[in-house]
Amino acid sequence: MSFAFEIEKTAGNARAGVFFTPHGPVETPAFMPVGTLATVKALDPDDLTRMGASMILANAYHLHLRPGDDVVREMGGLHQFMRWDGPILTDSGGFQVFSLAQLRTLNEDGVEFQSHIDGSKRFFTPELVMQIQRNLGADVIMQFDHVIPGQSDEASARDASERSIRWLARCLAELTRLETRPSPLRLMRAEPDKTAVDMPYVPTRTGEFAEQPRRQALFPIVQGGIHPTLRREAAAKIASMHDWPGYAIGGLSVGEEKPAMHEMLEVVDAALPRTHPRYLMGVGFPEDLIEGVRRGVDLFDCVAPTRMGRNGAVFTHEGRLNIKRAEFRTDPRPLDTACDCAACTRFTRAYIRHLFIADEILGLRLLSLHNVHFLLSLMRSARQAIRTDTLEGWAREWLLRFRATPAVEV
Amino acid sequence: MSFAFEIEKTAGNARAGVFFTPHGPVETPAFMPVGTLATVKALDPDDLTRMGASMILANAYHLHLRPGDDVVREMGGLHQFMRWDGPILTDSGGFQVFSLAQLRTLNEDGVEFQSHIDGSKRFFTPELVMQIQRNLGADVIMQFDHVIPGQSDEASARDASERSIRWLARCLAELTRLETRPSPLRLMRAEPDKTAVDMPYVPTRTGEFAEQPRRQALFPIVQGGIHPTLRREAAAKIASMHDWPGYAIGGLSVGEEKPAMHEMLEVVDAALPRTHPRYLMGVGFPEDLIEGVRRGVDLFDCVAPTRMGRNGAVFTHEGRLNIKRAEFRTDPRPLDTACDCAACTRFTRAYIRHLFIADEILGLRLLSLHNVHFLLSLMRSARQAIRTDTLEGWAREWLLRFRATPAVEV
Repeated sequence: MSFAFEIEKTAGNARAGVFFTPHGPVETPAFMPVGTLATVKALDPDDLTRMGASMILANAYHLHLRPGDDVVREMGGLHQFMRWDGPILTDSGGFQVFSLAQLRTLNEDGVEFQSHIDGSKRFFTPELVMQIQRNLGADVIMQFDHVIPGQSDEASARDASERSIRWLARCLAELTRLETRPSPLRLMRAEPDKTAVDMPYVPTRTGEFAEQPRRQALFPIVQGGIHPTLRREAAAKIASMHDWPGYAIGGLSVGEEKPAMHEMLEVVDAALPRTHPRYLMGVGFPEDLIEGVRRGVDLFDCVAPTRMGRNGAVFTHEGRLNIKRAEFRTDPRPLDTACDCAACTRFTRAYIRHLFIADEILGLRLLSLHNVHFLLSLMRSARQAIRTDTLEGWAREWLLRFRATPAVEV
Repeated sequence: MSFAFEIEKTAGNARAGVFFTPHGPVETPAFMPVGTLATVKALDPDDLTRMGASMILANAYHLHLRPGDDVVREMGGLHQFMRWDGPILTDSGGFQVFSLAQLRTLNEDGVEFQSHIDGSKRFFTPELVMQIQRNLGADVIMQFDHVIPGQSDEASARDASERSIRWLARCLAELTRLETRPSPLRLMRAEPDKTAVDMPYVPTRTGEFAEQPRRQALFPIVQGGIHPTLRREAAAKIASMHDWPGYAIGGLSVGEEKPAMHEMLEVVDAALPRTHPRYLMGVGFPEDLIEGVRRGVDLFDCVAPTRMGRNGAVFTHEGRLNIKRAEFRTDPRPLDTACDCAACTRFTRAYIRHLFIADEILGLRLLSLHNVHFLLSLMRSARQAIRTDTLEGWAREWLLRFRATPAVEV
């Protein structure tokens, strides 16, 4: 088995664990930076390595449209393409098909939609989405699911959840079929060959393919909106279908009230096997991460740290601030006085504000770097608190400090 | 004396030297990356260090307008503000006042103009420009000069050149006056103080100022358009005024024919003292660098590598290419097979093309990084060729290879 999950320590429902993948271990709880188009926006893979990121995300919908999963396969798969040697998880694109794309037509077979880039017609089925993710070659791949608006009524939520479970069965069947075949990824040299002067970094152009089928872990997605019964039923049904390497929780943090999200997490936590990792999709604000960890979640992802960073918003231990404000014009402090990231150990708020006001690209990079580092570091602290049995006190103090300064709207 | 120039070896009129500054030596010939607004666009100072940049540029006009030279002074000067511990040269803004700004009114005292950012009225005099550059604190500062279009007739060129020389005398007098006073730069800690947990990186807020006046080298600018007589007269007049630490050559590569530029370089080369460094302003295409070196130029700067990089244009040893072209869709080669920069040793053309097509910021950084590295590396090769007495043969072969592939218009 290429995948395994070991729980080192628990604290209430929270767990400190290690999720093993073919590209290395992921210490949990963990935040996974999002590299939608095979790049974590504004960052270099080396930046991510230096801040201790372990698993990162990419997106099957976006990469299928651009540059095409056939291109990624031809370039040796995502790891080789984007030069990330650690674990990668690809989202299936369910969320994107149902939020970004235009003119959707849904039937039991799949979804027809128009590309948000060029309006071209596409038809996604569970099988096609597995083939796309096979071409991308991520370690963890997500089922194709039917995603509905967060506040949908129970009947719509039930319909979508049950369809998602039927599609899950088709995803598993297709992946099983695909895994009997050799990996489609073109065999590439792992490192540039310094002795080949004219072509130092090039795949073996012999038409060979990777000989070993590469294992990919398929995660099902528990849907069910804000309806406890549906969530419980979905979790139970999914867990009974197969011994999944991990479980995702979808359709939360999409506009519902916080108490509803917390209740859903508690319901799902109780209904899923505790032996496997749980991934809460699309959740990435500091408070939500802490509340998720307390409710048995091991993995998180969110575009917030990079998207907010590109707008000038900064996470700090005293809450959020917006670096563009005039008050920072000659502020000699780092973004966050308690942070040791590559922005905070070198640059003042005054300088980074200047970069933003002047539309300089370095500003985007420094804030993205800081915000991602902030969440990675937050999850390392949570892990340490679980291991030392101090989670509840640590979480209370952390949140108190974070909320002490009135949040600046950014 | 804080500044000195040592010539290690000559080859024809070319020289391999070392220009010593208070922030370290610059091995010449050298290309100086341009950080107009206190950041080399799309790059991190650590990127520049890793590629072996020594001296970099910033711009007095731009920094005066945004964030204000008072802000930079308050933050400890440019080196501290942008975290560049190597030498910095600031351009005076003469070029920008006469090219970017609107509604200029010139008199002998100075130039009134409107800011290109907010239309506010400004009046630049040689004295003010020295004060601005004193606040910025660069190692090398440029005189304020009267810049005219490249193809101006001899009468206009003479008028501007002679005014520039009168302004040069005023610049020198003002700098001499400023240097009798303590440095205006606020005293800052050089490094974050890891023991000061709450405020690890902060200036001493005692109202103290740097005690030692910091030396700055004022470079005059030889103007004169494409008129050999004017160039010769300007060079002779300037050289007779003062023992300048170095000389700049302005008003070239602004639309004139290449032979005219080469002739002007030869005229100025012969008229300036060979004992001091010469800086050819705004020139930065590979061929121009090589032709400049052969004519006795030691220092170059240009926005081309970063500006072109942001448009997808790539310098390679086989000429230029544009990474956005469809032919690179699955090209597994690095940008330049003979390059060892941080882009070429990691990423394929296919990946970088994808980043550009998808408007991803990492693409801008990688091409900027590669192009700047290319010119730094070119000047290191030229230096080595001078030291080994192989400059002419090296230059011929280099240019032959560079021109062998028909240049792609980018």
